[in-house]
Amino acid sequence: MLITMQRDCSPAVLDRTRQVLESLGCRLRAAEKGPDSALIVVSATRPPDPELVRSLKGVASVEQGTVPACRASISSRPGGTRIEVGPVTIGGGRLTVIAGPCAVEDEDRLVDIARRMKDAGVDLLRGGAYKPRTNPYDFQGLGERGLRMLAAARHETGLPVVTEAVDEASLERVEEHADVIQIGARNMHNYALLKRAGRCSRPVFLKRGFAASLDDLLQAAEYVLDAGNPRVMLCERGIRTFSDHSRFTLDLAIVPRLKRRTHLPVFVDPSHATGVRDSVVPLARAAVACGADGLMVEVHPEPERAACDGPQALDPASMPSLVRDLRELSALVARREEVAS
Amino acid sequence: MLITMQRDCSPAVLDRTRQVLESLGCRLRAAEKGPDSALIVVSATRPPDPELVRSLKGVASVEQGTVPACRASISSRPGGTRIEVGPVTIGGGRLTVIAGPCAVEDEDRLVDIARRMKDAGVDLLRGGAYKPRTNPYDFQGLGERGLRMLAAARHETGLPVVTEAVDEASLERVEEHADVIQIGARNMHNYALLKRAGRCSRPVFLKRGFAASLDDLLQAAEYVLDAGNPRVMLCERGIRTFSDHSRFTLDLAIVPRLKRRTHLPVFVDPSHATGVRDSVVPLARAAVACGADGLMVEVHPEPERAACDGPQALDPASMPSLVRDLRELSALVARREEVAS
Amino acid sequence: MLITMQRDCSPAVLDRTRQVLESLGCRLRAAEKGPDSALIVVSATRPPDPELVRSLKGVASVEQGTVPACRASISSRPGGTRIEVGPVTIGGGRLTVIAGPCAVEDEDRLVDIARRMKDAGVDLLRGGAYKPRTNPYDFQGLGERGLRMLAAARHETGLPVVTEAVDEASLERVEEHADVIQIGARNMHNYALLKRAGRCSRPVFLKRGFAASLDDLLQAAEYVLDAGNPRVMLCERGIRTFSDHSRFTLDLAIVPRLKRRTHLPVFVDPSHATGVRDSVVPLARAAVACGADGLMVEVHPEPERAACDGPQALDPASMPSLVRDLRELSALVARREEVAS
Amino acid sequence: MLITMQRDCSPAVLDRTRQVLESLGCRLRAAEKGPDSALIVVSATRPPDPELVRSLKGVASVEQGTVPACRASISSRPGGTRIEVGPVTIGGGRLTVIAGPCAVEDEDRLVDIARRMKDAGVDLLRGGAYKPRTNPYDFQGLGERGLRMLAAARHETGLPVVTEAVDEASLERVEEHADVIQIGARNMHNYALLKRAGRCSRPVFLKRGFAASLDDLLQAAEYVLDAGNPRVMLCERGIRTFSDHSRFTLDLAIVPRLKRRTHLPVFVDPSHATGVRDSVVPLARAAVACGADGLMVEVHPEPERAACDGPQALDPASMPSLVRDLRELSALVARREEVAS
Repeated sequence: MLITMQRDCSPAVLDRTRQVLESLGCRLRAAEKGPDSALIVVSATRPPDPELVRSLKGVASVEQGTVPACRASISSRPGGTRIEVGPVTIGGGRLTVIAGPCAVEDEDRLVDIARRMKDAGVDLLRGGAYKPRTNPYDFQGLGERGLRMLAAARHETGLPVVTEAVDEASLERVEEHADVIQIGARNMHNYALLKRAGRCSRPVFLKRGFAASLDDLLQAAEYVLDAGNPRVMLCERGIRTFSDHSRFTLDLAIVPRLKRRTHLPVFVDPSHATGVRDSVVPLARAAVACGADGLMVEVHPEPERAACDGPQALDPASMPSLVRDLRELSALVARREEVAS
Repeated sequence: MLITMQRDCSPAVLDRTRQVLESLGCRLRAAEKGPDSALIVVSATRPPDPELVRSLKGVASVEQGTVPACRASISSRPGGTRIEVGPVTIGGGRLTVIAGPCAVEDEDRLVDIARRMKDAGVDLLRGGAYKPRTNPYDFQGLGERGLRMLAAARHETGLPVVTEAVDEASLERVEEHADVIQIGARNMHNYALLKRAGRCSRPVFLKRGFAASLDDLLQAAEYVLDAGNPRVMLCERGIRTFSDHSRFTLDLAIVPRLKRRTHLPVFVDPSHATGVRDSVVPLARAAVACGADGLMVEVHPEPERAACDGPQALDPASMPSLVRDLRELSALVARREEVAS
Repeated sequence: MLITMQRDCSPAVLDRTRQVLESLGCRLRAAEKGPDSALIVVSATRPPDPELVRSLKGVASVEQGTVPACRASISSRPGGTRIEVGPVTIGGGRLTVIAGPCAVEDEDRLVDIARRMKDAGVDLLRGGAYKPRTNPYDFQGLGERGLRMLAAARHETGLPVVTEAVDEASLERVEEHADVIQIGARNMHNYALLKRAGRCSRPVFLKRGFAASLDDLLQAAEYVLDAGNPRVMLCERGIRTFSDHSRFTLDLAIVPRLKRRTHLPVFVDPSHATGVRDSVVPLARAAVACGADGLMVEVHPEPERAACDGPQALDPASMPSLVRDLRELSALVARREEVAS
Repeated sequence: MLITMQRDCSPAVLDRTRQVLESLGCRLRAAEKGPDSALIVVSATRPPDPELVRSLKGVASVEQGTVPACRASISSRPGGTRIEVGPVTIGGGRLTVIAGPCAVEDEDRLVDIARRMKDAGVDLLRGGAYKPRTNPYDFQGLGERGLRMLAAARHETGLPVVTEAVDEASLERVEEHADVIQIGARNMHNYALLKRAGRCSRPVFLKRGFAASLDDLLQAAEYVLDAGNPRVMLCERGIRTFSDHSRFTLDLAIVPRLKRRTHLPVFVDPSHATGVRDSVVPLARAAVACGADGLMVEVHPEPERAACDGPQALDPASMPSLVRDLRELSALVARREEVAS
């Protein structure tokens, strides 16, 4: 139930309304929906009688049923969210490129990749230290040792680091060592983890679950926002369909839809979606062309020896020209958007 | 990598092989694949040279690549697994019926439902105390208070209790108060939670993720089995497809496939799959007819006032005849199977 | 646009209304929606102003937008449709079993199969003479020669024959030689063929397209009904999804939904859906258990030598006991339904 | 079965081999696989013994099983196919833009749109005269009258015309009046229509079925190619999935996959895929960015009054700048591709 208060309602009236509602068994949350309306969101075992609520002083209107993802909604921040991570500003028009190996395997190799990414114009370094693997017998990542390698690579290059947390314990470690906390597709519905991420001081990079609708994704983001962390990025990475020419079906049409629905920056990961190296570059371009704020791609110097997902990794040597192309493309699209609006 | 040892290989040789492999950077696990073959499963950052492994004493064969879900495989227990929960034996031919409300809301009401389920011939009581909800503002369950209500209902009726855990903290509470720990569809890929459930003393009721393949489901079960808990039940509850006449598409063809692939008991939940009351009974029958070991259905005495998922809840008054029908159907199918084999 | 006329509206008024509407550029059709209401369905390049239509004499109400599948709707024939084919009544409570080879290959073999199906209690013989094949170089069926073999098999056994038409030319041949015309899943959206089938004197067996929604299927049936053929059967045969343990995902939940929405008999084909022999029997049982009016299954005496789809064909020797089981199951379900209603 | 003949095999030997195979019950077709190897493709009720075939003079090798789409394969024309339609060359690097209304409604309006498309730099005019509609009561197009309007628009502007055929009768009319014959998504599996289109003198614009795999699409093209028409274009237009933010899920990753697999030009239709106007432009850009040879988009001057699919139609006034942008984007991508190769 969404209760919109009158704009001129005094703090005392607001407080009285809260007390009455709590006495009716409601749990309350304040939410900002638009720039100047004040709301109260109610969660209760049994919702209160809407007529009764409407008759309370200061209440302007009552909407029954499920409350939308109001903090994630574009109406609550029409100008869009910009997220500062070290020297990088995410959102706001400049394309952000995140690149790095699927899994962290070795410090020297990682530092070498990070240097090459830095030189190529990449903005953030990615690398998995905790790997959620479908098979319990597959390599699960180096854990905290991997996080220290990422920190070393940042120290050497100045590139902020994005890495995945898979549970509360790893999230604490990631928060300590990394700059951005990734929640992977398999954990997009792990609401306990989302709430915990919402109490973090680090921005959250949230991947769409591979069977999640647009609304599911926004509501997952809402868990993080509602728990207090306003810095969330969304990432499309492919959904499960019958179409078997690629590992997942990259649903690029979600990018313009998300840009209309939410103020949060929208990324695309073409590496996991396709699983095939020579599709990654065309789809990276496509993502930029349809308005993505950023990209996440995987690179590996010796893909055939990678601990996981080698076949989709780009050659680090190809990154300088790719990043240049993508930025040129991004500028072209932005110019056109400006003319159109 | 799967290393099968020679059957007559001595413990000393096995031990030596382990040491050599560990010195090569491998992490090892013993696994039983069939009744009398001994295996070692290797997980390593970089897999060892298979030729080298083959040349070690005692090694019979080496399979490269991803290791299958060997503990969940039918070959490791051809007779099928039976799980004892209080007075109930799950698996082994007798149909198990689990029923109860979607969410626990009120102790008196719950005890009343439990009594009616007991009288109807239901085997276990279900009821959610921790609810994973897509929307952060929806009712999230009563938590530990709900668990105590479930324990009270068990005390009154003798019905063992199944309830969902959504994270490590709730899993500890559920382990303490309930008889069977449910891992829901949204957490089937939450490997940290699966590993923790694998260290529990309670059986685990594992629901298929709504975009999980059969192999994903077996590998999720393998996480629990490999962590030490041999008592796992699987549950089909519908997958996401374009087909919009029901909430999810119940993939009943997975039931005979699972029965050929695994020794674990297989359940079906027609309530969440369809989301529509008058489809639940036909699909419950269909599940039994294609060989499911058990069913999980939702009931609610006043569905229009339920805190969640009212439209799919069955009337408790219909349960006695439904349970009788389903058992009669189950017996008919079992007789036919016997004749056929 | 759906225009419902007043019940007591005279033929003269009805006629006048038609003329006015036609002068507005509308194409009209009469449709029976319920037992005693008269309607006019309008199809027009640009729909007429609803206010203008409402003001015409005799008009009771006007519904704008897409017209539902009103002839297929349960409301137009609440008691359900029964279709007589030779000695067989389809619909009305008795389970109909259709069986035979995927493709007709050889007359002696076909007659032999037909005799065994007859002895097993099967109601209709199936067999493809025209095969829609994904690959142009695969065996496309024997054509009219195959139809003559089917006619010979009917002559020998008395079993009515169901076979597929793939275009207008083959439909004419099929209408001449067979008893029931099958429209396959790949042609469910071939509206020209549906209209042509609607002008046939034979009943139509319409398979659901593998990406068709429930509404798409009903509207495909409506094409046949609207063209004048009231004898249509529907058949679920699996949809395309990510789930890869079977060839298609059999969407059994559509059976109870269809039974609530339409008066047309509902069949299930578990052979094409699964593509795996040992899943066919469990899913045939499941289809009966959830209320299907009939089944279509494939048999082949030497599956490994079949011209197509051998791996899913049942052994003819298993059919007598299977048919007996399915009828027993059907009777059990029908008894329960009666008690419930 | 694919039989590759020796390169130096004489016509007499080839002829003898044909006779022997035909005497074994095989139906034969010649096929060019690569630039200089000669093949024979065999279709037979029961395939001949491969050992026997291998022992025939002139036979170089024998591949059993399903024959791939060899005429559509990139290996049969590595340089790619260019199709001339009036003054336009499709394929070969220059972006082709097809635009026009969903359905032809009125001659004056159509000629006006055509003039505006011509001025905007569009290459071909689209417009439906025969509309395959899910609902039998929806507007089905103006038929031959619509074709004559398209011909008039071509006469006025010089723009070649693309329009859909839905059955053999309409295909004959379309062949007579239009420049390119469209086979729509609902007819991609209508093999009779594909064969008929293969005997046409006009190029064929073949849309992917909304549940067709990449291989299904190539094999549908193979039907047309094998029947004698070498001028086929493919078009991605969205597939059916659970993702409900757009009407279909545009599977752009198929574009780079198709470019690796086939020599046929690849188009994308973002209008039908999304069904939402403000997603069409971003996805049109994305299609160009990932390498599509062309685009098909819908325009309508008064979308709210369109006979069908108004909500997805672009404003004709926006086309000049869109076409200019897309060509600029296409040139940018082409330059990058050249540098990369």
